[in-house]
Amino acid sequence: MTVSTTLRQELVALHAELVRYDLVAWTAGNVSARVPGEDLFAIKPSGVSYDDLTAESIVVCDLDGKLVEGDLSPSSDTAAHAYVYRAMPEVGGVVHTHSRYATAWAARGEAIPCVLTAMADEFGGEIPVGPFALIGNDDIGKGIVATLAGHRSPAVLMRNHGVFSIGADARSAVKAAVMCEDVARTVHLARAGGPLVPIAAEDIDALYDRYQNVYGQRRRSRS
Amino acid sequence: MTVSTTLRQELVALHAELVRYDLVAWTAGNVSARVPGEDLFAIKPSGVSYDDLTAESIVVCDLDGKLVEGDLSPSSDTAAHAYVYRAMPEVGGVVHTHSRYATAWAARGEAIPCVLTAMADEFGGEIPVGPFALIGNDDIGKGIVATLAGHRSPAVLMRNHGVFSIGADARSAVKAAVMCEDVARTVHLARAGGPLVPIAAEDIDALYDRYQNVYGQRRRSRS
Amino acid sequence: MTVSTTLRQELVALHAELVRYDLVAWTAGNVSARVPGEDLFAIKPSGVSYDDLTAESIVVCDLDGKLVEGDLSPSSDTAAHAYVYRAMPEVGGVVHTHSRYATAWAARGEAIPCVLTAMADEFGGEIPVGPFALIGNDDIGKGIVATLAGHRSPAVLMRNHGVFSIGADARSAVKAAVMCEDVARTVHLARAGGPLVPIAAEDIDALYDRYQNVYGQRRRSRS
Amino acid sequence: MTVSTTLRQELVALHAELVRYDLVAWTAGNVSARVPGEDLFAIKPSGVSYDDLTAESIVVCDLDGKLVEGDLSPSSDTAAHAYVYRAMPEVGGVVHTHSRYATAWAARGEAIPCVLTAMADEFGGEIPVGPFALIGNDDIGKGIVATLAGHRSPAVLMRNHGVFSIGADARSAVKAAVMCEDVARTVHLARAGGPLVPIAAEDIDALYDRYQNVYGQRRRSRS
Repeated sequence: MTVSTTLRQELVALHAELVRYDLVAWTAGNVSARVPGEDLFAIKPSGVSYDDLTAESIVVCDLDGKLVEGDLSPSSDTAAHAYVYRAMPEVGGVVHTHSRYATAWAARGEAIPCVLTAMADEFGGEIPVGPFALIGNDDIGKGIVATLAGHRSPAVLMRNHGVFSIGADARSAVKAAVMCEDVARTVHLARAGGPLVPIAAEDIDALYDRYQNVYGQRRRSRS
Repeated sequence: MTVSTTLRQELVALHAELVRYDLVAWTAGNVSARVPGEDLFAIKPSGVSYDDLTAESIVVCDLDGKLVEGDLSPSSDTAAHAYVYRAMPEVGGVVHTHSRYATAWAARGEAIPCVLTAMADEFGGEIPVGPFALIGNDDIGKGIVATLAGHRSPAVLMRNHGVFSIGADARSAVKAAVMCEDVARTVHLARAGGPLVPIAAEDIDALYDRYQNVYGQRRRSRS
Repeated sequence: MTVSTTLRQELVALHAELVRYDLVAWTAGNVSARVPGEDLFAIKPSGVSYDDLTAESIVVCDLDGKLVEGDLSPSSDTAAHAYVYRAMPEVGGVVHTHSRYATAWAARGEAIPCVLTAMADEFGGEIPVGPFALIGNDDIGKGIVATLAGHRSPAVLMRNHGVFSIGADARSAVKAAVMCEDVARTVHLARAGGPLVPIAAEDIDALYDRYQNVYGQRRRSRS
Repeated sequence: MTVSTTLRQELVALHAELVRYDLVAWTAGNVSARVPGEDLFAIKPSGVSYDDLTAESIVVCDLDGKLVEGDLSPSSDTAAHAYVYRAMPEVGGVVHTHSRYATAWAARGEAIPCVLTAMADEFGGEIPVGPFALIGNDDIGKGIVATLAGHRSPAVLMRNHGVFSIGADARSAVKAAVMCEDVARTVHLARAGGPLVPIAAEDIDALYDRYQNVYGQRRRSRS
């Protein structure tokens, strides 16, 4: 196999995190990881339940999204993952979900304003909205990349669709997906009760800089 | 037994999915499956908790809803299931729940508008509302069939009552019940925050056509 | 022991249902059961976590709420349970929770309107509000009894406080507590989205009569 | 080791309570405990997942927040915990979360009004709001202490940030964090549906006094 069992097992474990954090219903969500040193990425097969996902069932595609290894069809979102890996060489992991609070913002085409220190830490500002795009070509991938290119945020709300998140590795992208839903929920609840208190831009900058450089056990770890 | 152990076990497992996705409280929800090649269907016994459900406790009815096999009384919703099987020969599975967000739309008698690509995929448009109907005769069944006959949607919100969903098999009907609650929740949350962005009708058509024909590992699999 | 191990074990299992249905935080909820043939009831000890609850730790009180058997202090809500058992001889079980959606209605002093067939089935109409009452004497018990005496509902929303529910046995009272929160949630969500559609009074009567007499495996079983 | 294995294990178990009550996403929450008889406290290491937390991984700091024992960096919130222990000698445990409903109130800078008897019991009135403060110096700690010094409440909503709670021991502080989110949720839901009914100040006083002195198995136990 061109892809190590370790990376395959990590992908299975990261899909289980999507389930644990209640980000996915049925089979609607997927995680991929760039294969180190290769123009390849590993991704969930299409329509397979999270319970049935095994290291062996993970499929491998080239950066055009073409199946290279595996018995099953790759995720129907494979083209979007592939486009991100082609366009953003610093990205090592991509996650897609329809997590509910974040997707609710997406159904209004509305960015999530940065009113929580945890948002400043992880997203460095608002979580932006990407364009409406149909599945089946590179439109979704282009929308993700065009939106995230101009933002600190590792997550984008694709209009009327759901969330794509990126990271230096698949685990960081899953963390961004989890935190995106968490803050989408808190800010939704906050605004439902009355006007929000903004955080000053310079405070957001200070929080983002500190979190990206100091938090955790190693420099620049985001997990 | 006229019904295989496999089908009985699958029904027990599918009821567990209702619990896992938090679609049911106490005993308020049921799944049935048409028996292949027979004018029969298998269904949950009435008032039995999901923990206590076993393959042996599943009961079998004819298409008039009359008990044919089993020691327990069939679900109090059996007449509705039976009516659907009589009227819709292509249906192989029926699910009924009072899942909360979907039932909230039903309590207002309001269809769920199609503002999510996941809704276009699975439901091909809005999730429609069926009439108010009392239990005890064929009124609920008639309301389900009359509503779904004119829609792509495999789920109907019965007014002031709850959800009925159908599928080519019981697993597809359970998937429709799960996705119905998922989108009912997301659209509820979305609208609570402000105006929704509609999806163009031709985009809904394109998404529905693609999902029904391409998604998953086999053609027309919806699971 | 004056109280059978079976009844003690059932009480432990029923407290676990409160946890399973997410009706309680920390130690804030309790179930009691009248001891058959005795002027006694068994109840949760005060401040004990649900994880630590054992058959042996369940305490027994007389109908004045005085501890008769057990090493621990009885629930701080014991006086309210005792009053209900004294005043309502047909009651065999009492449950108290602060379940969130139901308590939200209680914090507004607002009854839950009957707009769901499941409410008509289980509650026979609205779920009523009882008076504000301080703990420490019979005021809570009197408020429960005065409110439920005029209603079909087995549950009452005590103002600014929480839910008390009753049943022919403890399991029925737990079912009423579970269904109370379930419909409190659905009706809350429904009304948040717009006007509710009422159910005609004669339809509520028909549904209630049928459910209380036909549903389940035995006549008048409500579990 | 300067800190007993028992205290370390208790901290691991209390972090699991944060997970069980869904107060934390990813690694965003921490519990600390003063070491009896020492000018030290034990706290979660930074950025470690709750699954991976072990008694050995818990770190120990002095009251200036300087690492005294352990291989990992202490929580990024250590300075705030340390400030509380220095300023409030009666405090034996501190908890920090971004629990969603409580943080929603914090994002509006709005105290949670005392409209539930359970709030009167545990918090003795409203749950107050503390100032906005950046991480990295003593500002958060000062804000916590300045706010809680004038209140019965063991929890404070730090503006745009989250919850800090205190207790005589770590378990009591965790209880306060759990109850804070519970009442934040119930009062949010209540107000979303219409005007709240206040509780008279003298009734709040009576409830608080009784709960702090009578509830549970031992005097002044709050767990």
